[in-house]
Amino acid sequence: MPMSKEKSPVERFQSFSDAYMPRIDDFIREYFGDRSAASELPEISEMYAYLAEYCSREGKRVRPLVMLLAYFGYGGDRNSVDVIKIAAVLEMMHSFLLIQDDIIDRSDLRRGGKALHLICGERYGGGSHNPEIGSHLALILADVLFSVAVGIIARADIQPGAKDRFMKIFADTYEITSWGQALDILNSASRTMSSPGETAVRIATMKTAYYTVLYPMLMGHALVGGDPDVEEGLIGEFSLPLGLSFQIRDDILGIFGKEEATGKPSDSDILEGKRTLLVDGALERLEGTGLDRFIALFTKKDKTSDDIDAIRAIIHDSGSLDAARRRHGELIDRSRNGLARLNIDGDCRAVLGGLVDLIAKI
Amino acid sequence: MPMSKEKSPVERFQSFSDAYMPRIDDFIREYFGDRSAASELPEISEMYAYLAEYCSREGKRVRPLVMLLAYFGYGGDRNSVDVIKIAAVLEMMHSFLLIQDDIIDRSDLRRGGKALHLICGERYGGGSHNPEIGSHLALILADVLFSVAVGIIARADIQPGAKDRFMKIFADTYEITSWGQALDILNSASRTMSSPGETAVRIATMKTAYYTVLYPMLMGHALVGGDPDVEEGLIGEFSLPLGLSFQIRDDILGIFGKEEATGKPSDSDILEGKRTLLVDGALERLEGTGLDRFIALFTKKDKTSDDIDAIRAIIHDSGSLDAARRRHGELIDRSRNGLARLNIDGDCRAVLGGLVDLIAKI
Repeated sequence: MPMSKEKSPVERFQSFSDAYMPRIDDFIREYFGDRSAASELPEISEMYAYLAEYCSREGKRVRPLVMLLAYFGYGGDRNSVDVIKIAAVLEMMHSFLLIQDDIIDRSDLRRGGKALHLICGERYGGGSHNPEIGSHLALILADVLFSVAVGIIARADIQPGAKDRFMKIFADTYEITSWGQALDILNSASRTMSSPGETAVRIATMKTAYYTVLYPMLMGHALVGGDPDVEEGLIGEFSLPLGLSFQIRDDILGIFGKEEATGKPSDSDILEGKRTLLVDGALERLEGTGLDRFIALFTKKDKTSDDIDAIRAIIHDSGSLDAARRRHGELIDRSRNGLARLNIDGDCRAVLGGLVDLIAKI
Repeated sequence: MPMSKEKSPVERFQSFSDAYMPRIDDFIREYFGDRSAASELPEISEMYAYLAEYCSREGKRVRPLVMLLAYFGYGGDRNSVDVIKIAAVLEMMHSFLLIQDDIIDRSDLRRGGKALHLICGERYGGGSHNPEIGSHLALILADVLFSVAVGIIARADIQPGAKDRFMKIFADTYEITSWGQALDILNSASRTMSSPGETAVRIATMKTAYYTVLYPMLMGHALVGGDPDVEEGLIGEFSLPLGLSFQIRDDILGIFGKEEATGKPSDSDILEGKRTLLVDGALERLEGTGLDRFIALFTKKDKTSDDIDAIRAIIHDSGSLDAARRRHGELIDRSRNGLARLNIDGDCRAVLGGLVDLIAKI
């Protein structure tokens, strides 16, 4: 990573991403490409190729990059080949989650391409009486990704103590994320809404904050073989606010963002009845008939575009949007303070600062 | 395990199962019970309890028991607590596959209880507009099982070299099984049927033979830290024929078995258009209009009970049933020869012989 005093933190993050993302993606393509070439059965060869394409689609690679930054920042070897493989594993696991997400949400598009269940449905549906064959095969291909991920970790050259700690964090990552996903499913498309409490924050913490920042940081730290007792608390103080602000930003853009910029329809969160911080904020602020009307609109099964506009207006007018922006800003500040206290090298701190800057902009 | 010269091999297998199955099941119940009790969120606490119940339902525990037999037979510590945990992990992973199987097949029953997607649907469906909420939650709970499994392995006290080898086999197990499942999905409910080749045998090998006998044997051997080069070939010569005969037995009972004995409807394999060895055997033996009629019947979307009876009769009359029985017998013989050559202690060899005897009976 070339050092340059003139670059802004965002530019430095971008340079880091430009340097490492291709190495991660190359490994993914090579890994599945080799498997595809080696497979004797044409069906399996073809499906490995689908995985190669799907897992290497354009994306931000936030989690692998954060893990690499923690690994390098805590003194890991900049030339390690195996840590690139582990970074690729995080991206494969991200694909595992995205494939399942799309099956659950019946989404047809993902990262500028077709959802995997759609690809499989179009390819194999013609020969089968099973109308769900695309989803069924995509589900199994997601399982393949999980197994492949574990196999790559098992084969990676990492010192045993560090590997065990990494594996524990790896396992906890996907367990907590799954629970966040379960809570999200339970609280989406609800017929009723109870008092908000911290429902949305809890889901966002489990489903996004741990998954996107905290655990990748911990994994990078673990791979170096560092002492967890000192640093884990500090990593949490940096990572959790950043991860939560990442989700709040996503929630705001999911309702008020421009479709061209976010790449997803700006009504899907409302249509799906997603329980976001913006929704909880409106529930908290409304009362009487205003509250009843919001709940009635939000829990409607089939929302019209007028309903969606009305919900958007209520979230805005109730003050929930402003409150979410304020909370986002406070979390970013806490994250910056946390970043300053991490015991990492200055270079990686600056690059991580660039990531914070990116997430700070809404 | 008490030694007794008078006991038959089957009785010795039964005694072994009686001794170890409760320890496996207790660990599963305790593990999820502790998690359920410790969870602050009532929804998550409740879902851990579902997992405790589901994973400890009555079953044969073939895979964990085979793994334990290999571990003990190759000199592993009979008092190891951690190997019981690993055996429980195999059962959790079996539940992972069963949950997904039931979602894919839309089966309502499993091991004398409700399928997990049905439990979740009944419990949470009332509050949601999402008609698939049961399947979606069950899918996520299956993911939880996979993560929990990896976490238990990461925390288990096993020497590092042995753990890495175990993990590789573990990962390969679920990858190969997934590919077998993918081939099974591709070849079920087909609109057309091409020349059989070894389609059914290939699916059975990947989906059952590796999964049920070979990999559990290899995992047990790996946990002891033994030298794979010598023994892996021998383990294969015992395990693959036994695993394949296990599937052929299942296929025969799936079409010609009594529902009371097998616990599943004797028409489901035909209804689902499962590509079994019996079907391939009929395709090989038939010709001309007989072949055309069989293909037309078997690839029909909605089969009547007359169709099912006709298919059953063709499989019988074509000689495919007899051929499958012969093949089953030959595989059992090969497996017995393989068992005799394994370098395991006599006690475990006898117990494994009891398992062979059980699979030998149709």
